[in-house]
Amino acid sequence: MHDINPIGIIYSPHKSIEDMPIQPKGASDYTGHIIVDEKYVDGLQDLDGFSHIYLLYSFHNTTRTELLVTPFMDNQTRGVFATRSPLRPNHIGISIVKLKKVVRNNVYVEGVDVLDGTPLLDIKPYIEKFDAVKESDSGWLQASNEEIRKKRSDKRFR
Amino acid sequence: MHDINPIGIIYSPHKSIEDMPIQPKGASDYTGHIIVDEKYVDGLQDLDGFSHIYLLYSFHNTTRTELLVTPFMDNQTRGVFATRSPLRPNHIGISIVKLKKVVRNNVYVEGVDVLDGTPLLDIKPYIEKFDAVKESDSGWLQASNEEIRKKRSDKRFR
Repeated sequence: MHDINPIGIIYSPHKSIEDMPIQPKGASDYTGHIIVDEKYVDGLQDLDGFSHIYLLYSFHNTTRTELLVTPFMDNQTRGVFATRSPLRPNHIGISIVKLKKVVRNNVYVEGVDVLDGTPLLDIKPYIEKFDAVKESDSGWLQASNEEIRKKRSDKRFR
Repeated sequence: MHDINPIGIIYSPHKSIEDMPIQPKGASDYTGHIIVDEKYVDGLQDLDGFSHIYLLYSFHNTTRTELLVTPFMDNQTRGVFATRSPLRPNHIGISIVKLKKVVRNNVYVEGVDVLDGTPLLDIKPYIEKFDAVKESDSGWLQASNEEIRKKRSDKRFR
């Protein structure tokens, strides 16, 4: 398999793993600044045509792996692969964020639900015709949009 | 940063990097069988409640990184981060696929656009309230659904 190394750093207003929005949908007021490594600047061409991008990153502040976790939006344990908890093997997170602008190797985004200093692994464009799912079931997650927006993290996934 | 290791293998009908569907939307006839490492079986609990899942995987057959690529759906070069090309740094792919069933450490999915034997890095539930994007712009990608469904890969990203 390939070696995996950060391609940049995500800077955000979230300095602590507690009291953070748990998803981009609760983070629309938070702006993030991504600095992509200078050597990758050419790879950012044409990104500014997209309104939304995927960030793939490392949950760098999480050290444990747990196979059963109690998600923020639930009060029962669930298999970690049925949640978005950082306690997963490989500790890779994804977030879909709104792209504000790209200035050379600086990428400004809105809806940042990651910790300040998070190592960035990849940026991909959100492409509606590839990614939109028309009808889906979300299993155990039955919370309302309002509950998701208001929910804030605690220490459980440290 | 964390060490990253496969958590399982994705088996698919696609034995060669050529003539594959380029996205799950063109792969609805293709069923995949994922074998997750036995030691992670508990992490799959509750996954079967979800109709769609993200697969994160390694583009294991791709050895090069290119910052400017000509995507399958275009005839101009684009920055690799503005495409879904495998030639990206870290060579991580994501696909949203339909979940058919989970039997112990076996996960059966529909809409598989990855090569047979692909190393799996993570499974995450697709959660409509987290992931659905209401309005978006897809930059250079202006192809129709029909064109995306019919498009097949060639050797360019080997």
